[in-house]
Amino acid sequence: MFRYPNGKAYQPIASTQQKKQQSITYSNRGMTLEDDLNETNRYYLENQVAVIHKKPTPVQIVNVDYPRRSAAVIKEAYFKQSSTTDYNGIYKGRYIDFEAKETKNKTSFPLQNFHKHQIHHMKSVLKHGGISFVILSMLNEFYYLEAVHLLEFWDRKETGGRKSISYSELELVAHKIPLGYQPRIDYIKIIEELFFS
Amino acid sequence: MFRYPNGKAYQPIASTQQKKQQSITYSNRGMTLEDDLNETNRYYLENQVAVIHKKPTPVQIVNVDYPRRSAAVIKEAYFKQSSTTDYNGIYKGRYIDFEAKETKNKTSFPLQNFHKHQIHHMKSVLKHGGISFVILSMLNEFYYLEAVHLLEFWDRKETGGRKSISYSELELVAHKIPLGYQPRIDYIKIIEELFFS
Repeated sequence: MFRYPNGKAYQPIASTQQKKQQSITYSNRGMTLEDDLNETNRYYLENQVAVIHKKPTPVQIVNVDYPRRSAAVIKEAYFKQSSTTDYNGIYKGRYIDFEAKETKNKTSFPLQNFHKHQIHHMKSVLKHGGISFVILSMLNEFYYLEAVHLLEFWDRKETGGRKSISYSELELVAHKIPLGYQPRIDYIKIIEELFFS
Repeated sequence: MFRYPNGKAYQPIASTQQKKQQSITYSNRGMTLEDDLNETNRYYLENQVAVIHKKPTPVQIVNVDYPRRSAAVIKEAYFKQSSTTDYNGIYKGRYIDFEAKETKNKTSFPLQNFHKHQIHHMKSVLKHGGISFVILSMLNEFYYLEAVHLLEFWDRKETGGRKSISYSELELVAHKIPLGYQPRIDYIKIIEELFFS
């Protein structure tokens, strides 16, 4: 399986075979965490709850072919590492910024799922008064972990401590998001409780 | 010249020939509006003024080749139309969202530079309490036009009125941004005056 520089698995478009493989690793719903979050964000947008979008995958374009005036085909391009997180937007006037990651590990969440640029970005967002967090998927459960806690775990790693968040730590510090129907991963509910109640 | 679905000119990476052509159309500094804004945003980030990034160009990836385990080459991909604006981020806790466009026209700014999805997105951002605007480049000048005004011009077009913003209208309603050295296009200064003074 190919992984992006940020460690995320590459999902080819319109590949049913890949879809089938995913359905085994990511619960039995045939959905990825990204699918669920896109659906969730679409729900928020349509119901005017919040305006949150996933950023496009960063690609370095090297060669483009123009078979017709109107259609351009990218013939050579490369995946680039993102310098930010994947999702951002607005909720009740506040700036929202997060990254979503899943692991197949059963006992801990490896911190190598994040890279330095993203950690640095989260610190900046916090400094400027934004709402920064990560959504973690593990053991078919979803967790909202505030950036401030992720940064503590990251610092522990940087100072020679363990390289992952243990499942019991995650349960203790993070907020569990129950999987719903509409919206599927209702992270705004956690934001509402943490910042607006 | 190839244009993206959103009407923006495609800029191949590492094409010096193209760069030279640009320098004729976009003042004589050999810079594009995007270059200037990237530089401006880098300045804001490094000086902890604001955290604002350009979103990657949306690309639909169809075919990826894996010559080595670590390197993936995208062999077939297509430009997609963005459903949002190109730039967003945070300043003093507020959500910032904008689009940047330039024209070679000398008498008016054509509204066809924007598409419906972007207009719709700007409305949503305003509704949720964000700071939404466009940066327009015309006659080697830069203007900060609040989304609320762009929406008025857009509505005029939709109801059968003129399809552009005349230069005199722009001068009247928009805020001129003088070209500086660091930062080059200091749009945060306008935001500061409009929302924090």
